[in-house]
Amino acid sequence: MENYRRTERTRVRRLPERGHYDRATVHAILDAGFICHVGYVIEGQPYVTPTAYWREGERVYWHGSSASRMLRNLAKGIPVCLTVTHVDGLVLARTGFNHSINYRAVMALGVAEQVTEEEHKLAALKEFVERLYPKRWDTLRPPSKQELKATTVFSMQLDEVSAKVRVGPPHDNAEDYALPIWAGVLPLTLTPGMPEPDPLNLAGLTLPEHVRDFVLER
Amino acid sequence: MENYRRTERTRVRRLPERGHYDRATVHAILDAGFICHVGYVIEGQPYVTPTAYWREGERVYWHGSSASRMLRNLAKGIPVCLTVTHVDGLVLARTGFNHSINYRAVMALGVAEQVTEEEHKLAALKEFVERLYPKRWDTLRPPSKQELKATTVFSMQLDEVSAKVRVGPPHDNAEDYALPIWAGVLPLTLTPGMPEPDPLNLAGLTLPEHVRDFVLER
Repeated sequence: MENYRRTERTRVRRLPERGHYDRATVHAILDAGFICHVGYVIEGQPYVTPTAYWREGERVYWHGSSASRMLRNLAKGIPVCLTVTHVDGLVLARTGFNHSINYRAVMALGVAEQVTEEEHKLAALKEFVERLYPKRWDTLRPPSKQELKATTVFSMQLDEVSAKVRVGPPHDNAEDYALPIWAGVLPLTLTPGMPEPDPLNLAGLTLPEHVRDFVLER
Repeated sequence: MENYRRTERTRVRRLPERGHYDRATVHAILDAGFICHVGYVIEGQPYVTPTAYWREGERVYWHGSSASRMLRNLAKGIPVCLTVTHVDGLVLARTGFNHSINYRAVMALGVAEQVTEEEHKLAALKEFVERLYPKRWDTLRPPSKQELKATTVFSMQLDEVSAKVRVGPPHDNAEDYALPIWAGVLPLTLTPGMPEPDPLNLAGLTLPEHVRDFVLER
């Protein structure tokens, strides 16, 4: 697989050794999450909206309601920036300056396309649910025509994309390693807690496997 | 304390009952995190960059290197959108359409101001380290003139700001509550793991309290 094209707009300038442009790295970061931040511009003002996303092949999808500011404007075909960030740890160094954060991030530039065909919209939503909760979709009441109509799905081709990744211990100045200061990494993970059943669940329902064994592939 | 002004640009349109404009809610969300997504526009293209931030009173601060695309451009005084999002849980409903995510988000619009005075920059960086790791700052090698010079700190007045919060169980259509489908919330928390000491730490250093007892006030 070819790399994504590295343009002046996506080239990682600050600490270029952290930049990645290969599809495997980008796909893995995208597939490890479900919340992105979509940036778009209205009358010169940038807006950054968190929303749920998913990837299929070389496209990324995200959705929301037709009523929202973002979706009404994206439908006009304006440029967007979709950024996904996973925080992996806090990096404690021997001087304030070298403190850092371990993370994996992807930035994808492009123009959003609205998914309008009902079939395609349905398939995209199914993919979203199934990716987080394998085998759940078929247990659900299928979406009504009205629900599909009220759902707006956008997609964007992955083309002008870069990843930026920081891993490992702090990088301190050579002379600072002689200082008696504890340095290291405090890992952080988004961890599922005890499932909270809806108080309105019917009696006797058992916890489905896709909840009991839920894993985020982070 | 007065609310933030609710403009056409920050008013929550989609599900307005989730919108909050009071300072207590906004401050609590900002203080519960340390990574924001900053949106800015260069030649019509939006960019969304994850970066570390912190709040002091009615200002939000973020930092990075003078070499980065974001910082070189923000210094020109262009409009930004700073968004902070905490993911609190996955909401599983009885139909795909009603699946949702529990989250707390803040969106702040404004113009970034560069912090240029060395004293102010130093105080801001100290505040950042101390907020995450109380009492760590005084144990560190103090920043050199050169390090302070290489650090760019931006700040923005909190003025045009809104919060959006979703909590609680799924909201399903009345008739769907009769279906034998498990619904509920799977809570998610960013959880610290076992600290990973830098392999280059001097022998005999003990784990500091600010690492051992680390809490994210989320």
